[in-house]
Amino acid sequence: MSGADDGDRTGNTEYGRRTFKRSRSHFADRITADGRDGWPVEAGRYRLVVSRACPWASRALVVRRLLGLEDSLSLAVADPIQDDRSWRFTLDPDGLDPVLGIHLLRDAYDARETGYPGGVSVPAVVDVPSGKLVTNDYQQLTLDLSTEWTALHRPGAPDLYPKAHREEIDEVMQGVYRDLNNGVYRAGFAVGQEEYEEAYGDVFHRLDQLSQRLADRRYLVGDTLTEADIRLFTTLVRFDAVYHGHFKCNRSKIAEDPVLWAYLRDLYQTPGFGDTVDFSDIKRHYYLVHTGINPTGVVPAGPDLSLLHTPHHREELGGRPFGDGTPPGPPPPGEAVPAAHRPPGRRS
Amino acid sequence: MSGADDGDRTGNTEYGRRTFKRSRSHFADRITADGRDGWPVEAGRYRLVVSRACPWASRALVVRRLLGLEDSLSLAVADPIQDDRSWRFTLDPDGLDPVLGIHLLRDAYDARETGYPGGVSVPAVVDVPSGKLVTNDYQQLTLDLSTEWTALHRPGAPDLYPKAHREEIDEVMQGVYRDLNNGVYRAGFAVGQEEYEEAYGDVFHRLDQLSQRLADRRYLVGDTLTEADIRLFTTLVRFDAVYHGHFKCNRSKIAEDPVLWAYLRDLYQTPGFGDTVDFSDIKRHYYLVHTGINPTGVVPAGPDLSLLHTPHHREELGGRPFGDGTPPGPPPPGEAVPAAHRPPGRRS
Repeated sequence: MSGADDGDRTGNTEYGRRTFKRSRSHFADRITADGRDGWPVEAGRYRLVVSRACPWASRALVVRRLLGLEDSLSLAVADPIQDDRSWRFTLDPDGLDPVLGIHLLRDAYDARETGYPGGVSVPAVVDVPSGKLVTNDYQQLTLDLSTEWTALHRPGAPDLYPKAHREEIDEVMQGVYRDLNNGVYRAGFAVGQEEYEEAYGDVFHRLDQLSQRLADRRYLVGDTLTEADIRLFTTLVRFDAVYHGHFKCNRSKIAEDPVLWAYLRDLYQTPGFGDTVDFSDIKRHYYLVHTGINPTGVVPAGPDLSLLHTPHHREELGGRPFGDGTPPGPPPPGEAVPAAHRPPGRRS
Repeated sequence: MSGADDGDRTGNTEYGRRTFKRSRSHFADRITADGRDGWPVEAGRYRLVVSRACPWASRALVVRRLLGLEDSLSLAVADPIQDDRSWRFTLDPDGLDPVLGIHLLRDAYDARETGYPGGVSVPAVVDVPSGKLVTNDYQQLTLDLSTEWTALHRPGAPDLYPKAHREEIDEVMQGVYRDLNNGVYRAGFAVGQEEYEEAYGDVFHRLDQLSQRLADRRYLVGDTLTEADIRLFTTLVRFDAVYHGHFKCNRSKIAEDPVLWAYLRDLYQTPGFGDTVDFSDIKRHYYLVHTGINPTGVVPAGPDLSLLHTPHHREELGGRPFGDGTPPGPPPPGEAVPAAHRPPGRRS
């Protein structure tokens, strides 16, 4: 939920107080197979709104790709630079989302709840016929794509939340959320030294633990890709480019940990992962929006991301990335990340 | 000259304008064997004022150690946090330098030139009897310690500016100054993206060139330590701790370049180099003084500097660190950097 990303600017988080606290999603309706919340799964009815900068939204980008939901759930990509009030569709002609016909994601929030005073965050799913926001619950959204949208999955879609492993997946994700997904924000938005150092400690404690866990197994849980890997990926892929410097998580880079670095490259090179990543959007978002920690607005030219394309040799650990399924094909033409926004070198 | 370090705060630099420009030293008298500027070399007469944070002052710290001038040229260490007007002796009892009897380095500038409007920088050499600043010419100072103070050198002092190699040393130092010593400041204090990227390009172009040069030779010029190595060292040793993140020189860390990383560890572990380095002073200075680029004042906990103590194997390249001379002994007791300000691990 990248209301978090804009710190104090949308009122969705408490950045500026002594301790950074992530707000809970306010709109938590679920889109389900049986439509019990009033939102049945239906091809072409909903629109997923993301920023490619945002790690929480990027989970949904990866899951949608892996499950082959591109034709069923359309995609709106917001400008990585949001303003005080909202994520904006300023990347589209006339600044208007061509399907929803709105300039600001906030307009969909307002359609759902007049005068909603909270922050506007991505990922968000909007009901196209009514223009109303359905959910911005970034924790539940991807799980529902896996478990409720099954009728629309592509043939060969992997099971990213397998019943046999859910307890372990949930446990791993909980630690990853607290110490990493959200831990890097706690470090970066800390206004006191003590608060920062506590978060920094959490970040590297968890990274060390994950490095050990992944030393002799290809994926976090079981021997296939799961939601747990996706949630770790969206933080790891931003780490050296943004969190290391901008958020001061600088004990070491991911590139300095042989296990995590190989794991990250393995995922990055897997169809559905790296092809969703827009480093230009990522870097511009963090370094331009957070004027409270980067007042000059200069965007670092580093690091050298072409190394993400180098061989990782993780296949030697075994594992079946897609289980009994298959990899997704390439992204639909209109959704490919521009080459200039991706690291030079071999494409995955 | 760490007037540079304080950016716009002393008026010594032009930080805040579009392009960062380093001011020239205003006081360029030389202390010589023949005393032709009125300042003859004399044991006990002068006091060297430094901040251990400052790379320019740190050159003098290393040279003084290697030449064994500790007894002849006394040392005043200023607080790494200077204020708008001056470096301060707030580390000393009552905030007073015990030899000069002044609170601020500016007092010595004023004794030399009433109402001097420029910035106050370290390193500075002060004439103890008169209390007057003699020189703040950081480029000439260390060369004079090598070539004019010879009568006071310890037995076994190395020749850091050997006549046979001066042309090559000067040439190397010129490129290192422009692209690295000063290049990192140009990158860090850039207020525009273009200016930053130009400096960033210079920094890594030069680092790559030096990495090639040092791949099969132990030192920059000849087969012994020279002034050129010292000037490169004081920037390299700060690179991963400060310039990489704070100044956005983040293509890669020194620790990611096998040649430069081994070279840096070799020097760091050489008596007279690492034992002058105070990482606490360095990090606190940069991250607390430059509020224009780090408004929160949070000081990063990383990187892991204990790796500076790991084996470098550079002795396999040959070379005679001290030429026909010998290494210096340990620092005088009163001058040792506190253990808490040095990385954990084996001491050099």
